[in-house]
Amino acid sequence: MSEPTRILLDESRIPRNWYNILPDLPAPPPPPLHPATLEPVAPDDLAALFPMELIAQEMSEDRFVPVPESVLDVYRLWRPTPLIRARRLEKSLGTPARIYYKYEGGSPSGSHKPNTAVPQAYYNAREGVRRLTTETGAGQWGSALAFACAQYGLACEIWMVRASYDQKPYRRSLMKVYGATVHASPSAVTTSGCRILTDDPGCSGSLGIAISEAVEAAGAADDTRYALGSVLNHVLLHQTVIGEEALEQLALLGETPDVVVGCTGGGSNFAGLAFPFLRERLAGRMDPVLRAVEPAACPSFTRGTYAYDFGDTAGFTPLMKMHTLGHRFVPDPIHAGGLRYHGMSPLLSHIHELGMIEAEAVSQSACFEAGVRFARTEGILPAPEPSHALAVTIAEAQRCAESGEEKVIVTALCGHGHFDLPAYERHLAGRLEDFALPQERIDSALADLPGV
Amino acid sequence: MSEPTRILLDESRIPRNWYNILPDLPAPPPPPLHPATLEPVAPDDLAALFPMELIAQEMSEDRFVPVPESVLDVYRLWRPTPLIRARRLEKSLGTPARIYYKYEGGSPSGSHKPNTAVPQAYYNAREGVRRLTTETGAGQWGSALAFACAQYGLACEIWMVRASYDQKPYRRSLMKVYGATVHASPSAVTTSGCRILTDDPGCSGSLGIAISEAVEAAGAADDTRYALGSVLNHVLLHQTVIGEEALEQLALLGETPDVVVGCTGGGSNFAGLAFPFLRERLAGRMDPVLRAVEPAACPSFTRGTYAYDFGDTAGFTPLMKMHTLGHRFVPDPIHAGGLRYHGMSPLLSHIHELGMIEAEAVSQSACFEAGVRFARTEGILPAPEPSHALAVTIAEAQRCAESGEEKVIVTALCGHGHFDLPAYERHLAGRLEDFALPQERIDSALADLPGV
Repeated sequence: MSEPTRILLDESRIPRNWYNILPDLPAPPPPPLHPATLEPVAPDDLAALFPMELIAQEMSEDRFVPVPESVLDVYRLWRPTPLIRARRLEKSLGTPARIYYKYEGGSPSGSHKPNTAVPQAYYNAREGVRRLTTETGAGQWGSALAFACAQYGLACEIWMVRASYDQKPYRRSLMKVYGATVHASPSAVTTSGCRILTDDPGCSGSLGIAISEAVEAAGAADDTRYALGSVLNHVLLHQTVIGEEALEQLALLGETPDVVVGCTGGGSNFAGLAFPFLRERLAGRMDPVLRAVEPAACPSFTRGTYAYDFGDTAGFTPLMKMHTLGHRFVPDPIHAGGLRYHGMSPLLSHIHELGMIEAEAVSQSACFEAGVRFARTEGILPAPEPSHALAVTIAEAQRCAESGEEKVIVTALCGHGHFDLPAYERHLAGRLEDFALPQERIDSALADLPGV
Repeated sequence: MSEPTRILLDESRIPRNWYNILPDLPAPPPPPLHPATLEPVAPDDLAALFPMELIAQEMSEDRFVPVPESVLDVYRLWRPTPLIRARRLEKSLGTPARIYYKYEGGSPSGSHKPNTAVPQAYYNAREGVRRLTTETGAGQWGSALAFACAQYGLACEIWMVRASYDQKPYRRSLMKVYGATVHASPSAVTTSGCRILTDDPGCSGSLGIAISEAVEAAGAADDTRYALGSVLNHVLLHQTVIGEEALEQLALLGETPDVVVGCTGGGSNFAGLAFPFLRERLAGRMDPVLRAVEPAACPSFTRGTYAYDFGDTAGFTPLMKMHTLGHRFVPDPIHAGGLRYHGMSPLLSHIHELGMIEAEAVSQSACFEAGVRFARTEGILPAPEPSHALAVTIAEAQRCAESGEEKVIVTALCGHGHFDLPAYERHLAGRLEDFALPQERIDSALADLPGV
């Protein structure tokens, strides 16, 4: 037992600052634009939706943003998270590579999402907000925000895509246990929901519709704001606790990574792990490859274009320059619901455009195969989202088995798969589809870009 | 952040020995009896079902039994588990009590069960066994054994009560992800299953039937043995890692407990936490009250009798002297499936009879109320089983709020409730039953005792 399997830090080592990568970039990312004026969005444009402190963080040029004491106090419930050496996985692969995974599934709601849900609830509460609204697909973000709101006495109202509301009841129930109100979207409680239900009473919903409802509800009440679980700069900022802790844990072992791998949907999990490593690389202290992994069914980095586009399907949000498949693109129903987003974080897109990170797409079946192999060796059942990163991690380790290279691979295991077992069951029964994505479908969606 | 919230130990602190309480008791427990001869069971009587090392542990008089290196190596995946100060729960109760919970839900299968599943799989593998069989109700034990078998290359065959197999598919899927074969019980693959299906093709099964099938399958093949997840001495022995770690964690804080609380079904979770504290009490080093909490719907300690009875419904097992409601007693369908057992560990029953532990029964609704309060304050969603202990912990802390006593309460949070969300949903909707248990039902079941 000389070298530890789980590298733990005591809670005095929770990062006291979030890391803002903006000042370390050679060029700033293109600004978000107001869709009417095509002028850069000003802080006041966002004040109906977000508290001022989050708007300030969204635009901050400070390298480090202090984590408030009250947020640290909630982080203590599960942070620092363990960095775990995947010895049994390595052994099953016969690889000389050393694989480490940063496990975020031990958080209250079971993913990395509370890292940003908690500060978002905190800043809203501090500015007198009484209620937060949001949308959720399968419910990872919704359950994280419901938990965070319970910590600060905020009401929480969540629009959950009806298809998931009906078919994935477990996370819906978890949100309610935490005290949130959960609406199936489209709902009869908003104007936009009513309008859709009038046209199509059986509508099964979409993330775009749910966003419209949550934004409408936030705009309609003075004491209410809206919260978003990925994509935006302040969300990525909050997630950097993952990478800061991982850096410290690797340093305790005397390890420097050769490859850092994470899955990307909106980008917050990958950025949370990768940005602190990128800072160290820019400073010349290490030289890891940073690899983003996305689903082959929703390949914004690898098959999308880098252009101004809307963040939502309906076209209500500011225009953001990002890797996108077009805001009208509807991904096939893969089980990694958290990665089914047509766009990508503008900040991460910019960094990709600067050539600082790589991207790769993998198929659904490869991910579930990786997930099963991981569960049987390491015990933890991974969610379908981080299974994307595991598939690439395993492929890298297998290449090392052939070449003999002793690479150090670090990956983000951003959530457990306890609520995804029906998908595993289908995979084991050989009934899980791999979706083909013909180029015409992408071309057709990209034809709808706003053309800014 | 002076006093920590989560008390972590690094993996060099995983206990190197399991604690066997037998030599510290003033009198030995009555022996199990062979049902035919009524003579004490001999090791050879058990050899068709268990490997010799586990039979030796079952009867061992050694105070400490070393944990094999290979078992330590698997324990490292999640042990030591955290001891967590429930500050937010305390605050919501306005209590001066200090509440600590030992959290076992971070294990691969989400409960304390792998603590014994891993050594059971190890000893079987070492003695050349190729396959283990077992029964499972809701699946906590089955998923733990499936995981453990995957670590040692053993096949694992599980009979799962059909009602749960159909209604609780998530843990069934988890067992399959770990590589186990899962049969709905009664099944057509055993003689006893076929016999029941012939009489009643729609039979929804019972734990008693599932035990019969698993035992039959183990007896029918030379390379196959049977594994049990609670009740027996060697199972309780393996679970003492919980209490040993908790003792060390409390010592780091300079705390000594006034009350130790755990839920009891077969008794392994409670004994695992309580036995090391009982040893310390017997040695005069502390004086905690040890309180076992059972469901009001299955009150073997508080309303059963202390007598020789069968461990299973069909009457195949040795006769064990224990607190029992009678082996024909069928508890109402409370959601804490892990506590629906007519009997109680013979060792724990003996210790209760010696007056060394207290017992208390609580209603299902009180447990779910405690579970919701805990989730909203501490973040972790508790399984219905440990919610029994939480209900009593909260009541104790509320009494402290009235009396001003600063008691130190330690409880076992032996698993998460991720697979129990439909029950929480029913609780929140006010649709969860509290079952009355008329004395006549107990009297009638006790009339069937073997009368030894």
